[in-house]
Amino acid sequence: MTFSPTGPAPANDLLLRALRREPVERPPVWMMRQAGRYLPEYRAVRATADFLTMCRTPELAVEVTLQPIDLVGVDAAIIFSDILVVPEAMGMALTLDEGVGPQFPSPVRSATDVARLRAVEPADQLGYVLEALRLASRDLAGRVPLIGFAGAPWTLAAYMVEGRGTKQFAVAKRMLYEQPALAHALLEKLAVAVGDYLVAQVEAGAQVVQLFESWAGALGPELFRTFSLPYLARAARRAREAGVPVIVFAPGAGWALGEIAAATEADAIGIDWHTDVAAARRQLEPFGVAMQGNLDPCALYAPPSEIRRRTHAMLQAFGPVGHVANLGHGILPDVPPAHARAFVDAVKELQWPDAVPVGAASSSTAYPGAA
Amino acid sequence: MTFSPTGPAPANDLLLRALRREPVERPPVWMMRQAGRYLPEYRAVRATADFLTMCRTPELAVEVTLQPIDLVGVDAAIIFSDILVVPEAMGMALTLDEGVGPQFPSPVRSATDVARLRAVEPADQLGYVLEALRLASRDLAGRVPLIGFAGAPWTLAAYMVEGRGTKQFAVAKRMLYEQPALAHALLEKLAVAVGDYLVAQVEAGAQVVQLFESWAGALGPELFRTFSLPYLARAARRAREAGVPVIVFAPGAGWALGEIAAATEADAIGIDWHTDVAAARRQLEPFGVAMQGNLDPCALYAPPSEIRRRTHAMLQAFGPVGHVANLGHGILPDVPPAHARAFVDAVKELQWPDAVPVGAASSSTAYPGAA
Repeated sequence: MTFSPTGPAPANDLLLRALRREPVERPPVWMMRQAGRYLPEYRAVRATADFLTMCRTPELAVEVTLQPIDLVGVDAAIIFSDILVVPEAMGMALTLDEGVGPQFPSPVRSATDVARLRAVEPADQLGYVLEALRLASRDLAGRVPLIGFAGAPWTLAAYMVEGRGTKQFAVAKRMLYEQPALAHALLEKLAVAVGDYLVAQVEAGAQVVQLFESWAGALGPELFRTFSLPYLARAARRAREAGVPVIVFAPGAGWALGEIAAATEADAIGIDWHTDVAAARRQLEPFGVAMQGNLDPCALYAPPSEIRRRTHAMLQAFGPVGHVANLGHGILPDVPPAHARAFVDAVKELQWPDAVPVGAASSSTAYPGAA
Repeated sequence: MTFSPTGPAPANDLLLRALRREPVERPPVWMMRQAGRYLPEYRAVRATADFLTMCRTPELAVEVTLQPIDLVGVDAAIIFSDILVVPEAMGMALTLDEGVGPQFPSPVRSATDVARLRAVEPADQLGYVLEALRLASRDLAGRVPLIGFAGAPWTLAAYMVEGRGTKQFAVAKRMLYEQPALAHALLEKLAVAVGDYLVAQVEAGAQVVQLFESWAGALGPELFRTFSLPYLARAARRAREAGVPVIVFAPGAGWALGEIAAATEADAIGIDWHTDVAAARRQLEPFGVAMQGNLDPCALYAPPSEIRRRTHAMLQAFGPVGHVANLGHGILPDVPPAHARAFVDAVKELQWPDAVPVGAASSSTAYPGAA
């Protein structure tokens, strides 16, 4: 396997430049869950195969990965997959029933359960994701950067212990309070698996990776610092050594942005839609990191003119340097595709430095540079 | 109806003193949902009547309201009821099925639906709650203060528009984005209803009232400031004019504590378990308000020695002035009652000013006073 951390520079390298806080004529834009149910073209593929089959079939995964580039006009592709493929690779049976969501019928509850979890050899158990990345990378032919991703250790542990998504993750949190040593043993294994997996994704063609600590919000400050942050940081730093920019997104932990930047050494921090942009900037300023986010996904229910207004306000709040325009959480399945395009178009029509909407994007306008 | 905002001073007036930021020998302690399923004695009553029947039957409501005072040793009683009695009083049919949770089968979606909502005359539609408060007040005979409560307008509106609790409240938020004028009309009606209801609760014997903005966390900063805060503030200020301390609890809006204190003029602000106590104190210091909270309800899964350690750490973090010890959210139904008692006992064994656990509570030790 050849190691090529970034590959040839893509034709549209706005994302890579923004993540390095280099000058950009306008912010890059993509959307979490951009390959998803809001697109009729996605639903057409989904009608032929269930979600997990789509994840496991590189050709199908690549097809939906590429859809939003032309259909919506985003500046990056993110590989279609699921964070729960890692616990599955560790030996946990994973089911996904319509309307119920993903489930592990045999959740992790004891030291025996933790001991039984296999070490992950990505090329082996997760070869189908790596193959999808290779195919997507080939098919993209450098048009836009390709993003890989993984769930962070605490988030995966929460699912593995609960057996399914819940509102409060009380079973998983009970383990943190009752059996902290067991929880640490599980998180330890996950940090290694996630780190290895991200490195393998980079080797397979991912030019950026994002870590999702989706259940950061289930933890208060003390538990977050004990059970999330150290393992998140380990996985992020490992990925960073592979030579690509790392984005860390920990929704529900807006109070911890500075701590996350310090511990993970991430290139960019995702900002959830709960978080005030000015407050996020104040926290992150000392770290010189890029920021990604954070339009409320529900704002895409508004009429397009209102989406445009809110998107421009969001861009102004983040400012011209080191901002990756995105939603502050995944796009919702019942958003009209035209509204997703209105969001993307609103980003594209803005041009720094004067920050006045000018109609259509024109990448010929040079950005005069900023601090 | 006689108007008696505070009634005779209760024998245990720790809560009232802490809410006024007066010296206390130790913090008062109570728990959100303290009359609830974790108590076998509650479940025995619940076995004879469904939840809504319990709410509507003053004798049953009073019975469970009083249980935790002796069983757990809390320093306050909170009337057993539900925030959704207000929408029901406005004419919405309310159902509560086991395992499904409360539902409004005919949710509010249109201007016609909003126009159809009745004005609330508390003595009429909510007379059963007022009667429960009168009976509880009589039965308490001043042993501990009695707390009344209501849901804040946005939280009630979210339920009324969705028809049930959801993870994202996307239907309700869609209304905020698509039909803001309609949302304001609904919230306007609710602010009046909630304010009137709280005043009536005070007249019926509530010595403190708490407003629950339970779904504050469904709103980002802009929506919170537009659709939650003004109406929350109006209801809180109305209740305050009735002459009792008002506690405002808006879980998921830890970033907004200062704004909430400023707008609502509340006597105390509830702190959720997500929020770092030091950060909360920094935000609230300028307002001279009391604070209530904030042990993680899941911490009650820990062994009692660990509960004790964490409770003491929490008390130290809040400091001796103006703190009401509580959980940072409702107690969970599967917590052992002995663990709830461990929490309450841990608060009681702490004595200010030296803040060293001294075994048992002794209210004879005078508090030497603090800023």
